Parts: sequence; C-alpha cells; structure tokens
Amino acid sequence: MKYTLGLDFGTLSARALLVCTEDGREVASVAADYAHGVMDRTLPDGTPLGADWALQVPSDYLEALRRIVPAVLRESGVDAGDVIGIGVDFTSCTVLPAKADGTPLCELGAFSSEPNAYVKLWKHHAAQKYAAVIEETAVRRGEAFLRRYGGRVSSEAALPKIWQILAEAPDVYAAADCILEAGDWLVWKLCGRRVANAAMAGYKAYWSPVGGYPSEDFLRALDPGLADAYRKMAAPVVASGAYAGELTEKAAAALGLKAGTTVTAAHIDAHVTLPAVKVVRPGQLCAIMGTSTCHILLDRAETVVPGFCGVAADGAVPGYYALEAGQCCVGDHFAWFVEHCVPESYTEEARKRGIGIHALLTEKMSKLSPGQSGLLALDWWNGNRSVLVDAELSGLMLGMTLRTTPEEMYRALIEATAYGTRMIVEAYRNAGVPVSGMVAAGGIARKNPALVQIYADVLNMPIRVGASKQSGALGSAIFAAAAAGASKGGMATVEEAAERMGALESRVYTPGKAASAVYEKLYAEYKTLHDYFGRGENGVMKRLRAIAAGK
Amino acid sequence: MKYTLGLDFGTLSARALLVCTEDGREVASVAADYAHGVMDRTLPDGTPLGADWALQVPSDYLEALRRIVPAVLRESGVDAGDVIGIGVDFTSCTVLPAKADGTPLCELGAFSSEPNAYVKLWKHHAAQKYAAVIEETAVRRGEAFLRRYGGRVSSEAALPKIWQILAEAPDVYAAADCILEAGDWLVWKLCGRRVANAAMAGYKAYWSPVGGYPSEDFLRALDPGLADAYRKMAAPVVASGAYAGELTEKAAAALGLKAGTTVTAAHIDAHVTLPAVKVVRPGQLCAIMGTSTCHILLDRAETVVPGFCGVAADGAVPGYYALEAGQCCVGDHFAWFVEHCVPESYTEEARKRGIGIHALLTEKMSKLSPGQSGLLALDWWNGNRSVLVDAELSGLMLGMTLRTTPEEMYRALIEATAYGTRMIVEAYRNAGVPVSGMVAAGGIARKNPALVQIYADVLNMPIRVGASKQSGALGSAIFAAAAAGASKGGMATVEEAAERMGALESRVYTPGKAASAVYEKLYAEYKTLHDYFGRGENGVMKRLRAIAAGK
Repeated sequence: MKYTLGLDFGTLSARALLVCTEDGREVASVAADYAHGVMDRTLPDGTPLGADWALQVPSDYLEALRRIVPAVLRESGVDAGDVIGIGVDFTSCTVLPAKADGTPLCELGAFSSEPNAYVKLWKHHAAQKYAAVIEETAVRRGEAFLRRYGGRVSSEAALPKIWQILAEAPDVYAAADCILEAGDWLVWKLCGRRVANAAMAGYKAYWSPVGGYPSEDFLRALDPGLADAYRKMAAPVVASGAYAGELTEKAAAALGLKAGTTVTAAHIDAHVTLPAVKVVRPGQLCAIMGTSTCHILLDRAETVVPGFCGVAADGAVPGYYALEAGQCCVGDHFAWFVEHCVPESYTEEARKRGIGIHALLTEKMSKLSPGQSGLLALDWWNGNRSVLVDAELSGLMLGMTLRTTPEEMYRALIEATAYGTRMIVEAYRNAGVPVSGMVAAGGIARKNPALVQIYADVLNMPIRVGASKQSGALGSAIFAAAAAGASKGGMATVEEAAERMGALESRVYTPGKAASAVYEKLYAEYKTLHDYFGRGENGVMKRLRAIAAGK
Repeated sequence: MKYTLGLDFGTLSARALLVCTEDGREVASVAADYAHGVMDRTLPDGTPLGADWALQVPSDYLEALRRIVPAVLRESGVDAGDVIGIGVDFTSCTVLPAKADGTPLCELGAFSSEPNAYVKLWKHHAAQKYAAVIEETAVRRGEAFLRRYGGRVSSEAALPKIWQILAEAPDVYAAADCILEAGDWLVWKLCGRRVANAAMAGYKAYWSPVGGYPSEDFLRALDPGLADAYRKMAAPVVASGAYAGELTEKAAAALGLKAGTTVTAAHIDAHVTLPAVKVVRPGQLCAIMGTSTCHILLDRAETVVPGFCGVAADGAVPGYYALEAGQCCVGDHFAWFVEHCVPESYTEEARKRGIGIHALLTEKMSKLSPGQSGLLALDWWNGNRSVLVDAELSGLMLGMTLRTTPEEMYRALIEATAYGTRMIVEAYRNAGVPVSGMVAAGGIARKNPALVQIYADVLNMPIRVGASKQSGALGSAIFAAAAAGASKGGMATVEEAAERMGALESRVYTPGKAASAVYEKLYAEYKTLHDYFGRGENGVMKRLRAIAAGK
C-alpha cells in the first residue's frame, strides 16, 4: 500500500491527512493551531497594529508542520517509505517578504517590530486605500488584466499588500529580495525549490500565461518605487498541485519522512477541493460552501465572465482554466440569523431535545413547501461578490405578515443563497460556459440535506455532495498522488487520482418537478429585485450606508 | 360637585368611569367581562360557527352594565343625584337584528340556534364574499358613496353583514324590524329612544347628511330582497356623543341612577377619544395608537382624501366632518417582532433586570441615532389600510448586514410606522386639510416616550400625548358633560368640556432639527419604496401571496 500526505494550512491551524492511494481511505489525521494565531491587535513583542490588520508569524507554520507530520505517521502506523507524495494547500493571498535564501524579514532582528515585515494574511484589509488607487489607475489606463477579475482590485490581492509595504515600511520593501505567497514559501522550505503556483499567481497576483504580470509601466504609474514589485514575486510558475520538487534531507529529517518524497506546488485551500469531490472536467460546478461559498468551474478557454472573481490557467486542475465566482455570505447568513433572530422558545426546544438550533430550524423549515411562506430575500447581508461585485449592497427580506415564523425566514435566507448561486450559474451559461450539475463540498452541504435539496430545486440541476470532512487536505493528497506518478505507486493523472481517491456521498439530489416550477417563479422575482436594487435603478442601499456614515 | 359617567364597551369587556366635570378627575372605574366574550367557534347552545365568524350575545352588554354602574357608584361614594350625564361608546360596526320593541332576535326561541340572529362583532369577517360583490357592483354602477370610503367596501361594514343575514337566514332577515348598531341598541335601552349615531351611520352604513344612505336601486341590484335593508337601519341621526334622551325609570332602577339623567348618542370607541385628548378643532391630528392606529382629523368641509377609510359628518366632534385614516399594524408589528425575532440573550437580560422585553428593546434602540442602523422597513405586515388600501401588501425590511442587531430592527419597525403616519399626514395636506401637530392616545404612546420622539422627528411636528389610561371612557364622560348642558352643571359645548376635563401629559415632543433632517432623507427613501411596491410597479408582494396560495 502507498500513501500520500495532504497538508492543509488554514487560517488558524494546519492539518495533516494521510490517505491511501489505492482507495482514498483516510488513514489518520492530525491538526495543530498556530502558536500566534491571527495577530490583529499587536505583534508578538507588543507593537500595536492598526485597524483591519491581520498578520501571521511564518515560523508558526513550520512549527505546526513539525508536530502534525510525525504525529500522523505515528498514529497511522504507516512506514515513511510508503508515503510517496506530499501535497500542500494554503490560504491565499497570504504574502510575506523574505531574503533570497527564504529567510522571512520578520525574523531579522532589525524588522521584528515592523508589522510590514510579517505575513499579511488573506483577510488583512488594511491595504484597502492602495487597492482603491490601483483599481482607479488600472481603469483609467484601460489595463487589460482587470477584466479577468470582474473589473475590481480587491484589498485582499497581492499588489495592495505589497504596495503597503513599500509605502509604510520602505526599508522592508528594499530589504526584500522576494515577496511571495506563504504557500509557495512553505513548499520552498520542503523541497528547496522556489516556484509560484498558478492559482495564487493567477487569481491573486494578476498573472496569466499569455500576458504575464501587469506591466512595469503600470507599476510605475502607481509609484516609481513599485516598479520591481512583480520581479520580487516572480518565480517559475507551476500548475497548482503539480510536481514542484522532492523533499530535502533537512526537511525529511525534521518531519520523519523520506528525502526525495514528491512535493507538489502549493494550491489555494478552496480550489484544491475539486479532485476531492471528483470535479476534474468542465460542466460540473464545484461549490465550496462555508461561511461564504466559492464556485469553481473548469473551462478549456480563458473565458471572462463579467463580474466574476477571476480566471486562472491551471488554477484548479492542471490543463484547464478555472473560473471563480463567489458568494460572500452563506453560512454567515444562517449564523447571523441564529444569533440575532431566533426566539427563546426555539432555543429552549432545541435544548430540551438535545439538538442544535440549526438542526431545529432545518427540521421546521423542511416541512414547508416552496413558496408557502410568501417570503423572498436578497442574500446581500455581506454585499455581493460576484455578478454585481458591490460590497455596499445590503440585505433585504419582504413578504412578512403577522403570521411569519422564524423557520420561514430561515428558509427564505437559504433560498436567497440558492438564488444567488443560480445568478452565478446563469452568468457562466451566458458567457458560453455550460453547467450541467453541481457538486457541493463543505460542512453546510454535508450536514444539511434539506438545504441541498432546495439548491437542487432552485438550480433545477442534480447536485452531489462531497463525502470527506477534510476535503481540502484530501484534495492535496490526491494532487500528491498524481504528482508522484504511477511509477512510484501514485497515478498518471489528476483525473485518475480523483476517480480513485475522491469521495462523494451516494445520494444524488435530483430537482423535484413541482418544486422547480415554483422556484422558477420565485427566482424571476428575485432577479427583478436583484437588478432593481443592484444595478442602480434604486441605489437606496448605498444611500442608507452613506446616511449611516453621517454623509 | 357634578359627575358624568363614561361607559366604554370594548371587544371583551365594558368599563364604567366616573369623572368630575369640574376638573376631569377620574374618581372611580370598574370593568366587567362579557359572559360569552367573543363567540368564534360555537353559539351558547353548541351550534358550530364557520370560519371567520365573531358573534356576541346582546344580554351580555346589559348584564355587564348592571354590574359596573352600581359598583362604580359604590366605589366612588358619589351620590346618584350628582351624576348628570351618561356617555356611551361602543365597538363598531357591531350590528344585531331586533324586533320593533328592541328585542334581539336571538332572544326569541325560534332563532336561538341561528348564528345570524346574534350580534355580529366588528371583527366578524365571514361576510367577505358579500363585501366583494357590493364593492364590485358599486364600482360598476359608479355609486357616489364609495369615494368617501377610499373606494373600498370593507367586510367589517354594515351592509355585508346585513346581506349575510338575508342570504343565509332569510327568516331572520324577514323577522327583523330593525337591524342596528349595538351601541345604538344600548342607548335605546337606556333612554327609550332609538337614534342612529352619526359616526357609525357615516363610517359604517355609508350614510351622509347630503345623500342619505345608498339608494334602494343599488340595494336591488345586489339582491331584490335587500331593498329594505336601510329602512331597517334607519333612525333619526344624532351627532355621536350628543344628547339622545334621558334615562328611563326602568333603566335608572336597574343601575342605581336617577331617572331623567342625560344619555348621549353612542360613539365609536376610537373616535370618542378626541375630546379626551383635547382635539376639538381642525389642525391637530388625533392618533389613537394600539395594535393598529386610527388617525382622525376634524375638517369644516366634507373633504374626500383618496384611499382613506372614510369621512363622516359629526363623526367625532359635533359640527365638524371627521376624516379617518388608519394603519392596520402598529403595536402588532412590535408584538410580532418580540414573539418571533428576539433572541434568548435579550429575553434573559430583561428577566434578570425585571423589565419587559419591549422596555429592554426600547432602551437599547433609544441609544441609536436616526439613520445609524442603515435599515429601512415598509410597515405592511398586515397590509396597508390607508393611502394604498391594499390588504395584500406585505412587510419589507432592507439594509441588513452581519452586524445588524435586534434593537436596530425593532427601531426600523417603529420608524416604518412613523413613515406610514407621515404618508397619511401628507395625504391630508395634499387634499387641502392642514395638519400642524399630533396628539397621540393609547398605551403605546403613553408608555414609550422614545417612540413618540421618533414620530415627532419623522413627522417634523410637535406631538402631545393623552394622559388618561382610559381615554375612550373619558371621552364618553366628556361628551356626557356637554350633552347635559351648563344648566345641569355640565358644559355648554364639547370644546369647553374637553378643555376642562380632557387630559394631556405636560411634555411636548418637539422635533429635533438634526434628527428631522436625517429622517427627511429616510422618508424620501420610504416613499420611493412605498410607491414602487405599493402602486403596481413591482407587484411582487401580491404574486408571492398568489404563489403561497398555490395559484
């Protein structure tokens, strides 16, 4: 038996999952928190941080690694010699400045009190003002790259974070030989080779195989000092999850693995999921559902869908362009509702019956038929990330009467997120990219069959659900099996590895004819409201925000 | 010292309030429930009732009267000889069929099991299908009366209830020498004289001093058998609350009062409030706030405001037309919210602090400034009764984010009802009827100063609040003082009686300049949504109801 190791680096912890390449059996799994977690108030030495900062300490990643890899081997009883590959996925865009030998600048004494020398986590939002100028400048100059990203520059992207280093800590910027994704940095530590994985380069650093990075001319227009920003980022681009190199003697010794073990290029922690749920060809939409939802669809061409998050070559499965769209509030909606809107009588009933409040609400809302409540909501509690790309939009619910119940509102919120997904599916289709089914990964999908059925009815498409509780780590392990190759006991292709090791629940959620017919009508109503409030006909949501801000 | 007695007949109980005519001091008050309450499932003998029926037993009113009047005299220690007048207010339209001597048909053995022989309470809605045909026929024939009632025939009006008797119990209809308001029936019992009070005749039976009742021709178009319906209703019309007659020997003996005591014509339990809060001239809007709100404004002419509930000569204060508008969901909104949308943590906090949940939410929402929440709501949880007159409209809230709190939503609902009131105020003004201030009566206004301040800021008008907890009964007592006249120790006019006996809280709620400026903007947004969803541009609320009904 051969095994691969999936290493999944999340926001607060890292997880190692050992998987059998023969049948995808998850043999053992160990997780460890990062020692400093997310730093959003102070550095380790007490240096205070401003608003919206979110940093990490790079040595935390290595320390977690040295705990989880030996532990997972121990727990599994598997011999290190039978571990043929290591796959890595990481949050992104999570970037750090480093020296040419890979030493993070925050580890140099001179910079240990300088926030800009640390890892800027994906959700570091303090570079918003730089993002705004980048977007404005790119629009003015008609920069071609922008259209691949819905015409928007997110404050979470690489360039705003890098510009912030230059503007606020020019010494750090000058001292940085490279600025890179933490995922690529970790792979470098493992195999001694620095590569840039295609997904992070494509979605977050605006790289494409045709045009490369945005031009130096553009960078100079932002700030002459920024001209070499992409030179600091640049490295050979490798398809995410593909072969990057082999485990060094040093890393092998530290982790208890064999030197020479195949190491993959890093992958984004969401996008790595596709082979774990057997989505390895165009046509099937992969929805990674959590607090927010990420929708990824494979395509043979670089199709630009207006208002989408991005498109990247080799951005999910090698050989395909991966189109990404997102809903920025899915589980978050339901969590908000449960925290703020569920009466004591319900909380008590759940407690008495020993079930969770989500389970209770789901049970109650499952008894309703489509359209029965007379409610309709727009799923914009956290703005709209795809199609409209407008963070200033806000939530709406209508149709309430004096008989409206909590479970009706809960269901309306679920339905609203399903309509939001359908808007995205239709945008894919309008751009000429076919979508014939959906596969959902993530806890929400696994735990809530009633929700998945509503999605199937609203989308009028069959849906399947990923079976693994650790679909990110499983995805990494699958990529590692393909990267190791058949000769080492792995697989020749990602497709084959996904077929063998990926895991779907057996149930197929088929749309109900009657339910879909009702949802067809409701979706038409949703769309009318979506356009009325979202496309400028009635900008009340923005005006209310302006009033709230005292403008 | 002289006193008057206000008799307030509500939905479930009757109250007697003894008031000093000198200064309006409320000397004593006693209430009693009706023995059979509201019958909505069976008659006293077990005969089952259909859906939406709501009946009462007329003898219950008399029985309550025989308990509360002697008791209030006893409790007060006031001598019956010092009680110079009795005022009566009653729910309306609450009608019963009777013989020429006043005997209710349900008291005849032959009809004791016939639901149509009993009192149909104001909220009896089982005549809806008759109302629909009446409205349709009146519209088709261009009946002039209809425009005085917002163009609509309510199922709560008199004619649908009477037609139901004819259609479903023709024997009862044939046996009925008269069909009359329970308030007028009670006054008849007290003073031996049958009159029709102007408010009930005007608002509920479509009578006006110019045109009288709708024509027999119209009644025949509905059903030839209905031609004499208004002949059964007709009686000398007397201004509501004005002198109707004197207490008979028999009634005086039963109640422990003096024969010859002045008895007023009945009044509607809402409209009777005006003198109790000193609204006796045009310009001041009287808002009687409870589960719903009734807005009454005095006018010298019969101004028809499109979409309003009705206009009646002498319908509130003698000598004036009274224009009525209504919001059908005010306290009901807040009660719905508290029942369905307030989380356990709030309920617990209120319990720990020993305060009500409304008090807690009010305290929290008072700390917010106007516009701060970014929320906006349409107050249509129970449809819209005035301006749009559309029961099929439903509630809306928008602007929610993941940081939205329960108190923000609670405040948004309060603000929405204030915007709804402002729509009504502007409709009065657009019709040429000036409104310069508002006086609010009812528990909601008395108990919630923060709410009243929001109303003042939204309306940009000063507001005062009625001080009596029993403003209906106090209003009846004031009318009784004026009806008794100065020579008996009462007052010459209602104006004078109101000045002497009416009661306002000392605080004047003055609009805040900054708050009003913000609410001006928010109200403009409300109005845009009001028209978009309420005037047919987007009929989504009705379509959702149709979908919910399986259409």
